[in-house]
Amino acid sequence: MCRTGRSSDHGVGQGLDETLKADLIRVAHTVADAARPETLRLFRSTGLAADDKGAAPGGMGRYDPVTAADRAAEAAMRAVIARERPHDGILGEEMGTTTGTSGLTWVLDPIDGTRGYLCGTPTWGVLVSVADASGPLFGVIDQPFIGERFVGGFGQASVDGPHGTHPLATRPARHLSDAIVLTTFPEVGTEAEGRAFRAVSQAAQLTRYGMDCYAYALLAAGQVDLVIEAGLQPYDVHAPICVVQAAGGIVTDWQGGPAHGGGRVIAAANPRIHAAALALLQASLA
Amino acid sequence: MCRTGRSSDHGVGQGLDETLKADLIRVAHTVADAARPETLRLFRSTGLAADDKGAAPGGMGRYDPVTAADRAAEAAMRAVIARERPHDGILGEEMGTTTGTSGLTWVLDPIDGTRGYLCGTPTWGVLVSVADASGPLFGVIDQPFIGERFVGGFGQASVDGPHGTHPLATRPARHLSDAIVLTTFPEVGTEAEGRAFRAVSQAAQLTRYGMDCYAYALLAAGQVDLVIEAGLQPYDVHAPICVVQAAGGIVTDWQGGPAHGGGRVIAAANPRIHAAALALLQASLA
Repeated sequence: MCRTGRSSDHGVGQGLDETLKADLIRVAHTVADAARPETLRLFRSTGLAADDKGAAPGGMGRYDPVTAADRAAEAAMRAVIARERPHDGILGEEMGTTTGTSGLTWVLDPIDGTRGYLCGTPTWGVLVSVADASGPLFGVIDQPFIGERFVGGFGQASVDGPHGTHPLATRPARHLSDAIVLTTFPEVGTEAEGRAFRAVSQAAQLTRYGMDCYAYALLAAGQVDLVIEAGLQPYDVHAPICVVQAAGGIVTDWQGGPAHGGGRVIAAANPRIHAAALALLQASLA
Repeated sequence: MCRTGRSSDHGVGQGLDETLKADLIRVAHTVADAARPETLRLFRSTGLAADDKGAAPGGMGRYDPVTAADRAAEAAMRAVIARERPHDGILGEEMGTTTGTSGLTWVLDPIDGTRGYLCGTPTWGVLVSVADASGPLFGVIDQPFIGERFVGGFGQASVDGPHGTHPLATRPARHLSDAIVLTTFPEVGTEAEGRAFRAVSQAAQLTRYGMDCYAYALLAAGQVDLVIEAGLQPYDVHAPICVVQAAGGIVTDWQGGPAHGGGRVIAAANPRIHAAALALLQASLA
């Protein structure tokens, strides 16, 4: 869980001294900065080619594109960490795991939302976060095309974008029938997971699709009430957990436990809407 | 149809002299400029209230929010037209029709994608276009938060945004099984319309949701192959028609006829993908 200095802190990771925290924040920004030109070089270019990881050996069968931009961005991000934090480990979407000795691991998704990237949408993101054994500590959701960066952890919760810098704070509790739900695809996870998702979606006022990691950024910015997804990887969710929790929200799996292992994830603006949605998910799956 | 100086021109509206065209382009930009601060003032503000037009008398029953930002933006846009082009007519989403005497009508949607606006997404847009009796002539799709403006008509087809100004050109023909389809909701139109949409969607490589008017901008920018929607109003589609056609694309209704009256709309990157998708829509509806 991210350490935000808020009442939701769990007390873990408090052993990190302020100098180390400041260094991790600095490096996280430097890593995100390194990804920006690599992701933008090919964005909206003609002839951008996508390999299909889903069709590859070990793929999940579903269309899962990866581009040269994903690989170039992750290489640039890893080069920063190798130079600035050589003893930390790295878990990246495209290039696997590098073991470290410091007890800290950087979790990287060079382009979260490669499908959206391939369509030219401005709602994919670069995800950077750093974790210890207990979970993610500090995270960045960066949108290079807009030039917008959401950060959370170590007492920070803010967004810097084309219209200035603003604090992030999730919205207050409201009834589920007045709530907005975001997810990436209408086909959420397995058939049973999709049914559970729709139990929440149909009880809410409005459901919108297609935002990828930007959905968590909007939750942290107080714009929506819930983000519900399934089939996630750790690198999809570490940075979003940091940003949403730092802004006052809650991120768990669909059993209410830690979400940083991936899988089924529910991110909520506040405990009341979290409880209401979790109850519907669990009733559907029971 | 928009007059773009391309082979797809229909010869109508060619009577407009260059001075008038330049004036209409200037006013279209001024109108879009006037909407920007009005839409941004409330964007991502806390406590942004939405009335439900769908639930109002004459509403369509579906959640159809309108915000103070829609109304303020349309008022600002109308004030520009009243000052700069007092003899032109106006058709706006929120404030109805103003009759003119010049034979030209401005068609305005102050916020296309109010649901997306209410969620804080950066993919709603301000739509400005000018039409004569034959249909739309010149259009603007403006995204104020990103600061991105797509224009099309009178020989222009370009986007100006945070990373410079670029020409717009739709993508070359590819097989439908390699195509990307965009639409706003998974629930496209009526039950029969939704079935027809899914006939195309299931034959395509990838379908993405949630982009509102930005979908047409991405089509014009060569990023996707098809945008398919139903239940549109004229003000939803006039500006997108101009931008897509100026970029080399095709916009028709689901019978292959003019689309500027709204209803069922298919926008395609090129004639081959248009024909392939149209055949599936018609086979499903037959």
